[in-house]
Amino acid sequence: MTKQISKRRQSEKPKAHTGEPTNGPITAEELQLAVRNHSLPLEALRDDITPAGLHYLLTHFDIPHIEADTWHLRIGGAVQRAVEISLRALRRDPAISIPVTLECAGNGRSLLRPRPLSQPWRLEGVGTAVWTGVPLAYLLAQAGVDEDAVEVVFTGADAGIQGGVRQQYGRSLPIKEAMRPDVVLAYEMNGRELPPQHGYPLRLVVPGWYGMASVKWLESIQVVTHPFDGFQQSVAYRYQKNADDDGTPVTRIKVRSLMIPPGIPDFFTRSRVLSPGPVMLKGRAWSGEGAVVRVEVGIDGKWVPAHLGHPAGPFAWCEWTLPWVADRGEHELACRATDATGSVQPLEQVWNYQGLGNNVVQRVKVNVE
Amino acid sequence: MTKQISKRRQSEKPKAHTGEPTNGPITAEELQLAVRNHSLPLEALRDDITPAGLHYLLTHFDIPHIEADTWHLRIGGAVQRAVEISLRALRRDPAISIPVTLECAGNGRSLLRPRPLSQPWRLEGVGTAVWTGVPLAYLLAQAGVDEDAVEVVFTGADAGIQGGVRQQYGRSLPIKEAMRPDVVLAYEMNGRELPPQHGYPLRLVVPGWYGMASVKWLESIQVVTHPFDGFQQSVAYRYQKNADDDGTPVTRIKVRSLMIPPGIPDFFTRSRVLSPGPVMLKGRAWSGEGAVVRVEVGIDGKWVPAHLGHPAGPFAWCEWTLPWVADRGEHELACRATDATGSVQPLEQVWNYQGLGNNVVQRVKVNVE
Repeated sequence: MTKQISKRRQSEKPKAHTGEPTNGPITAEELQLAVRNHSLPLEALRDDITPAGLHYLLTHFDIPHIEADTWHLRIGGAVQRAVEISLRALRRDPAISIPVTLECAGNGRSLLRPRPLSQPWRLEGVGTAVWTGVPLAYLLAQAGVDEDAVEVVFTGADAGIQGGVRQQYGRSLPIKEAMRPDVVLAYEMNGRELPPQHGYPLRLVVPGWYGMASVKWLESIQVVTHPFDGFQQSVAYRYQKNADDDGTPVTRIKVRSLMIPPGIPDFFTRSRVLSPGPVMLKGRAWSGEGAVVRVEVGIDGKWVPAHLGHPAGPFAWCEWTLPWVADRGEHELACRATDATGSVQPLEQVWNYQGLGNNVVQRVKVNVE
Repeated sequence: MTKQISKRRQSEKPKAHTGEPTNGPITAEELQLAVRNHSLPLEALRDDITPAGLHYLLTHFDIPHIEADTWHLRIGGAVQRAVEISLRALRRDPAISIPVTLECAGNGRSLLRPRPLSQPWRLEGVGTAVWTGVPLAYLLAQAGVDEDAVEVVFTGADAGIQGGVRQQYGRSLPIKEAMRPDVVLAYEMNGRELPPQHGYPLRLVVPGWYGMASVKWLESIQVVTHPFDGFQQSVAYRYQKNADDDGTPVTRIKVRSLMIPPGIPDFFTRSRVLSPGPVMLKGRAWSGEGAVVRVEVGIDGKWVPAHLGHPAGPFAWCEWTLPWVADRGEHELACRATDATGSVQPLEQVWNYQGLGNNVVQRVKVNVE
């Protein structure tokens, strides 16, 4: 399949999305995806570690059914010793547990104008879990990576069609990222066997990178000496200006913060009502590029620094809090994080063709009455 | 609040939904609900018991945060002895475990024309779990129900606004239903502590009834001598012809079957492609009104009887299977269940104003190539 793509003429190059971005209404296909994939309800931002079933979930194709007893992970390609390893054997290897915030690269897409046609996330394509498993670097060291290796390709058991290309979901990592000590082949989530929807029996977790890198339902790991050009690498998950732009690859998670909407919701509009008086505003902030160093809360356009908690790990979100005394009337609340690289969330989103890497400031309207 | 509603003039009666049913495009509010609530991915129909995180989830308001250590269930009203009971004490009472298929009463709503404006389910608002807890009848017997009692009212901790009415989610059951031996106050789902989103620390589960009856995050159980007229009973969850129709209450789940779409999906359209040759068509069927006695599979309009498996319990779905030899071309597959009362799924849905109790035959288009 990889070769199929590279042999095509540029004009025939498959597209990541079906149809051009639109200012029109939500389509039947987008609704279907919105219903099928799962968001984090914003009130679940109260938890350091997201309980099972509340973590965001994007399933590109179908959730495959895998029998762990007969399943093997194959490690091969540009290595000294190809390896085939069972889940039982993997569980005997040295294990690490690491809390990681994962966010979908398309989070926030439905708020863009025009709106790229794909999973129409609002702001809730995120979650934090503790992943337990074997460091990828440990297994790669056992296999012995060849000196001319440039990338490691991960292929999942999930199969389908995207952009007209029949494929199993596959992504690569540069060797340097693959050899990081915190990149893990996980068989547990939050201390329990991986749920089917999160990649049972084994998935990759790449802390700091958007979720597309953390390949689920792993079948094979291939070390390669040329950059991987599978669909999910060379077509999807690229920052493009338009359909003809080759673009640049999506990698690390941009700095973002979200707020638990205070008060109580209206069922249909989800608009918020709260009583006058003191209220503790709370939320989470994260970045894949460096620690979060500042969160400011906007109250009717005036920015106030929030108190920052300690994250459970270097790539896990941290809590922020700000006491507020709400007075009657309509108010607009917002939150804005800055990370150690100096990156700060934008007040207006810079648009890109696939709607990726959004991190615009969240705004929450509340009615105090 | 109950009194507030009953004292209003008919013209001021709150409405279950915001706005009239529409033939227009999906609205921003509907997308927001679709993104927030969770569906069962249809491939999860392969499991007898739905794994945690794949069961459907409709959260009317916000998921409340409840500290189990200080939480108490209050049982009162028309009883001999009002009771206040801790989770620890409840866990010492005799327990039952029961597999139950729950379906949202609004499942299928987005397929209606015109489309009532609420959570825009397609077909996947369903799931089956094993619920463990204390039979409600056991606790009611301990409290001693007065002779003139007619209903039992269940109130959850989840609060919000619907139809302009500020409320905690509340529903009632007729005494006769409440005294059924299989109606359970559940503190475990699939052998584990209830997840927050499924009603932690305690929820009601009413086997055979649509999901609205199974009140989550239970705070109080009140035995009453007059029919309950809270919003979720007297306004929402009624089969209405139009906004002025008082309608009739939604109760038991109508017979329905669903199919695991065979083959592989296109990411965006979810259309299915499979290879020619033998394929085992599979799915599930259930009814809250009587055992499923027949499932037929429609292949290009011709109905063939499927093989029926044994359900895990009287109110749990049962598997159906049908081997099919797929030949090249486009095909339309469908499935249709019949229950012991003789009810059969309709080929075309009879419309109602709130879009409730839908059980139209599912149709799956496949391209064999």
